[in-house]
Amino acid sequence: MHATVNAATLERVLGHRTRFDARFGQYFDSLAGRFDLPVPSRYVPRCLDLLRDLSMRGGKRLRVVLLYEAARLVTTEEVPGLAEAALSIELLQTHGLVHDDIIDDAPLRRGGPSTYYAYRREFPGHGATALGLAVLAGDLAGFLSTQVLLEAEAPVALRQALLGVHTRTAAETVAGQIADLERDAHALPDEEFLHTVTDFKSARYSILAPLTMGLLAAGEDPAPHRARLHRYARLVGISEQMRDDCLDLFGPFGEGAGAAPAVADKSTGADIRSGRRTYAVRAVLAAATGADAALVEAALGDPRCPDATLERIREIARAAGVDGRLKAEIRRHAEEAAAEAASWEPYWRAEAVEFFRSLPMWNVDRMP
Amino acid sequence: MHATVNAATLERVLGHRTRFDARFGQYFDSLAGRFDLPVPSRYVPRCLDLLRDLSMRGGKRLRVVLLYEAARLVTTEEVPGLAEAALSIELLQTHGLVHDDIIDDAPLRRGGPSTYYAYRREFPGHGATALGLAVLAGDLAGFLSTQVLLEAEAPVALRQALLGVHTRTAAETVAGQIADLERDAHALPDEEFLHTVTDFKSARYSILAPLTMGLLAAGEDPAPHRARLHRYARLVGISEQMRDDCLDLFGPFGEGAGAAPAVADKSTGADIRSGRRTYAVRAVLAAATGADAALVEAALGDPRCPDATLERIREIARAAGVDGRLKAEIRRHAEEAAAEAASWEPYWRAEAVEFFRSLPMWNVDRMP
Repeated sequence: MHATVNAATLERVLGHRTRFDARFGQYFDSLAGRFDLPVPSRYVPRCLDLLRDLSMRGGKRLRVVLLYEAARLVTTEEVPGLAEAALSIELLQTHGLVHDDIIDDAPLRRGGPSTYYAYRREFPGHGATALGLAVLAGDLAGFLSTQVLLEAEAPVALRQALLGVHTRTAAETVAGQIADLERDAHALPDEEFLHTVTDFKSARYSILAPLTMGLLAAGEDPAPHRARLHRYARLVGISEQMRDDCLDLFGPFGEGAGAAPAVADKSTGADIRSGRRTYAVRAVLAAATGADAALVEAALGDPRCPDATLERIREIARAAGVDGRLKAEIRRHAEEAAAEAASWEPYWRAEAVEFFRSLPMWNVDRMP
Repeated sequence: MHATVNAATLERVLGHRTRFDARFGQYFDSLAGRFDLPVPSRYVPRCLDLLRDLSMRGGKRLRVVLLYEAARLVTTEEVPGLAEAALSIELLQTHGLVHDDIIDDAPLRRGGPSTYYAYRREFPGHGATALGLAVLAGDLAGFLSTQVLLEAEAPVALRQALLGVHTRTAAETVAGQIADLERDAHALPDEEFLHTVTDFKSARYSILAPLTMGLLAAGEDPAPHRARLHRYARLVGISEQMRDDCLDLFGPFGEGAGAAPAVADKSTGADIRSGRRTYAVRAVLAAATGADAALVEAALGDPRCPDATLERIREIARAAGVDGRLKAEIRRHAEEAAAEAASWEPYWRAEAVEFFRSLPMWNVDRMP
């Protein structure tokens, strides 16, 4: 099965992104009027600037595209509440990224400094102040993500419904992040547990919530469709997470199966150095025995693990066929997601159904 | 002016607390049905237990009492939304405490371990995991504080109005906490800046929001009263904050003016050791000169500052009359707050107005 994105779909998707980015910028311009700011303060405006910087370095805006396309499952008309739902989802994302980068002690995010490290650079020798300001910056983004929905120009019943999705999703995402930390306490986490973590930590807020909110804004009751929406979200989430984990271990795809890998970029192996028992790391652990297994265990969580050891772990993985099996699993989950979306045709507009059908394969078809 | 709390008022206040604590326990019992939990997980239920423990060690529940009494400004009837507003306010408080104790690296809270330190004890040698779980626990409490309001059994317009107060207050409180960290970067912060920090960091969520929400639940539009409610909240907040800061420096009141202080408890001097330029610390800094000033500056932010140095700082403070001036300021702000409340008689029920009039003096009249 090959997915081609036709020119009309591509143009539509790019249009969603462009319109959203303009709107997101306007939102940050309007922030000072949305709540009182302590005056005089230099730290509070600086916090808002850092949240803006991180938010506007937004990359693909896949959540926003999913949201707009979900509304198009029902209608091509402009619908109320959609723009604010998009702002809310991306602010929730900003909240999560700021706190994630504290939890992971991560210096980089979206091609720039993480908020935590931006503060660490601004307060050298004052680690506690930097940590505190980063915690608070994330908190602020979280509350703003609620407020923007609450103030949406939309009928009150819709606003309530959108807020219901938002708060439930936010709570479940935090639960998923907690379970993500729990994962790394298991010597060999069950694959089903990894699926649960992926579902809670990313599929629900990145895929299920945009889908649900888009339908709500377009006037459709998503309740009868919850199971099929969730199946799709979970499958796409798992496929994407496996792909991320694979990239982290093996480096960029595209070298041709069996050939030597392309030069691994700096972040390759970060999961092993941080002790994260991801899909890829788990697969290596499950396959390795004896001295190989001991070598992988010793590397896990060692921030100074040398590149040569990482390369040796990749050799162990390839020798056991881990890369091939993972790629097959990535493809299988994407194909199941595509099939799920294809089954939506009786309910919704063909053009948007086709978007959701093709989406899971976008990245998969670029794998060797 | 002396405030006496009559028996009927006392019984009412205690009744608010008792009813609320029972309700808060029920809320935590019901949590599993409010959003999906990843299964199997030990960490997520443990997080909920820690949030429950901290929340139920709730002390005075002053915010809850203010909320219920604010509704009684208008009516003695049961009003919808009030119980959920109380839960929301206390969950927002839990959120703030969990994150504050990360920011302050505080082991103790409300007579038990802080959430951060509970996790540090459960994960010895894994500081990053403990930090991550504490950040996430606070995040979860924050989103739950929104959700409980959203699901209130109350007319939708009221729910929207309560949520509006909640999110605005939450954002302003975070801004206040940021400004609180900014305060400590000033050699001698302006007293007006300290007032602004107190207003944003505590008066708005602890006093203004409960007052506003209580009036809303009772069917009163708080908008025309915002200035007088805010004046009251700010004055009470400043009086209480100055009192806390005074207690931290000088230890418990009650030793009789001019006499030797009672034995300072372990936490006395924590503000100096942590480098917090509070009202009391600021007053000492403003009064001290030469070698005395250098001694205070050297002690600020030194976690190992010896007790003898703290005692010497107290002597410097008393010699300069800092304790007397602070007590006079605490009393003056409380009296202004009481006068503000007394001016509410034309608008609201006398019994509840009397409660708000007497409240600011409760602690003040126990000072020597």
